[in-house]
Amino acid sequence: MKLKDLGEFNFINRIGRKIKLSGRVIKGIGDDAAVLKYTRDKYLLFTTDMLIEGKHFNEDDKAGLVGAKSLSCNISDIAAMGGVPKFAVCSVGLPDSLDLKYADELYEGIKKIAQRFEVDLVGGDTVCSKKIVINIALIGEVEKENLTLRSGAKGNDIIFITGNIGGSIKFRHLNFTPRFKEARFLVKNFKINSMIDVSDGLLADLGHILKESNKGAAICEKTIPLSKYAAGFDSAVRDGEDFELVFTLSERYADRLENMWPFKTRLSKIGRILNGRKGFTLVRKSEKSERIKPAGFTHF
Amino acid sequence: MKLKDLGEFNFINRIGRKIKLSGRVIKGIGDDAAVLKYTRDKYLLFTTDMLIEGKHFNEDDKAGLVGAKSLSCNISDIAAMGGVPKFAVCSVGLPDSLDLKYADELYEGIKKIAQRFEVDLVGGDTVCSKKIVINIALIGEVEKENLTLRSGAKGNDIIFITGNIGGSIKFRHLNFTPRFKEARFLVKNFKINSMIDVSDGLLADLGHILKESNKGAAICEKTIPLSKYAAGFDSAVRDGEDFELVFTLSERYADRLENMWPFKTRLSKIGRILNGRKGFTLVRKSEKSERIKPAGFTHF
Repeated sequence: MKLKDLGEFNFINRIGRKIKLSGRVIKGIGDDAAVLKYTRDKYLLFTTDMLIEGKHFNEDDKAGLVGAKSLSCNISDIAAMGGVPKFAVCSVGLPDSLDLKYADELYEGIKKIAQRFEVDLVGGDTVCSKKIVINIALIGEVEKENLTLRSGAKGNDIIFITGNIGGSIKFRHLNFTPRFKEARFLVKNFKINSMIDVSDGLLADLGHILKESNKGAAICEKTIPLSKYAAGFDSAVRDGEDFELVFTLSERYADRLENMWPFKTRLSKIGRILNGRKGFTLVRKSEKSERIKPAGFTHF
Repeated sequence: MKLKDLGEFNFINRIGRKIKLSGRVIKGIGDDAAVLKYTRDKYLLFTTDMLIEGKHFNEDDKAGLVGAKSLSCNISDIAAMGGVPKFAVCSVGLPDSLDLKYADELYEGIKKIAQRFEVDLVGGDTVCSKKIVINIALIGEVEKENLTLRSGAKGNDIIFITGNIGGSIKFRHLNFTPRFKEARFLVKNFKINSMIDVSDGLLADLGHILKESNKGAAICEKTIPLSKYAAGFDSAVRDGEDFELVFTLSERYADRLENMWPFKTRLSKIGRILNGRKGFTLVRKSEKSERIKPAGFTHF
């Protein structure tokens, strides 16, 4: 059996199903970041992302943007837990035929994001590789009361999304701002029941919230904010790498959030968490409802 | 200018020379692991290593050994700081034509080492890649009084090495035991002034201690313990991936250490730290001295 025959093969989740963890681990594999015991008031967060040339970026993409993306997607994971990014280590595999200028621009891209989000770049590894590979691992912190998991969605919660989705591959996947300040505003001012960042596509990632929370959801086509790059609704909800936040909170606070929202970043109500029926109900623009499968970006 | 024209190009050290870090960082790029503020009594350690098929292992190497190596070399880094490994995240790039069996054996290899050294594997990333790539990032802890840097070597310190060196490429680089228990014994019972693990070759890594400590060293050919796989002295001291510990302590305690040493792992005195002249003096078996350059494993 080959990996491609398995449909979606997720090595890390496969590990996660089998592994026994110590009592120091609050949440292991299966959220945007691991949650680890730390101080009396805070948890440590720990996440990692690998970018490979030809898959997450192309050889003619600007090196500075590639570097920026490699750190930004990790910051997005820490933000989706309600946390603050702190320390990063960076491994790079580079071809020996690569121009020094490219390597320096890659680094400048990482540094720019590190400075902007006050992340200390404290270590790493350099190896020789045919294709460019960049792996960043990021440690963050979160106050215990601000920790936001995928698993906390409650029936009747309103589902929100930041920004616009779809077509990120055309440009924005290399030039996005992780929704760190939005996430911190949310967790500090509201009881956010569940949150995730959209890396595998809205349907797949909201699907993770539903699965972890053991809930269903109804979402409305007409309320879902499409980017100008989106090819259409059905692809936009399956495109990966939007790096927007999807979160749920009690409907009691939904209006207050919309009134208080202080950012230029768009905020949209896109549906509701359902207690009963699992999976998605999609209300089309025609008002017809249909059941849909949470398929998104697949690794294989 | 291409990377290969630079001789040794180390992307991470290049970053390390330019970057400003916050006060939360005790030691950033430039030791076996980063040292970060943590609790009143302890520091957090943070390290990462990337292994690439064709460079650090071959496609016919056993997957279980490759997995074991990917975590073990990180544990070796934490050990070389005097610390205890705690939490790991693992990114893997795998070809879609790969056999599921290979992926599972890779995982079993990682898990075996994680269990043996009580490391929690708490997260990761799976991507599709032409060549197999494995990146592990590891968080450890160290009591403040046990932290051992490269920079602490003192004049007249005796230089020790664990195990045997050389020729690890023939077998042992895929099947070594990180010297964790030896390192913990050392830091708990002795004032170890400096320590590093041998990943780039003895001369290169002891060279890092000399450079960071601003010292020189005299080492004796006849005292350096060669592995049965070593092709000869001159290559053995330049071979990489021995994953043995090189450390220095005051000559006052050197005999006591040799008498107390409770492990089967060989322990050898190989030379002495010198205050004056920088770099290495090598005392050949013929008793002739020569000056040597600390060249080791190069990344490009």
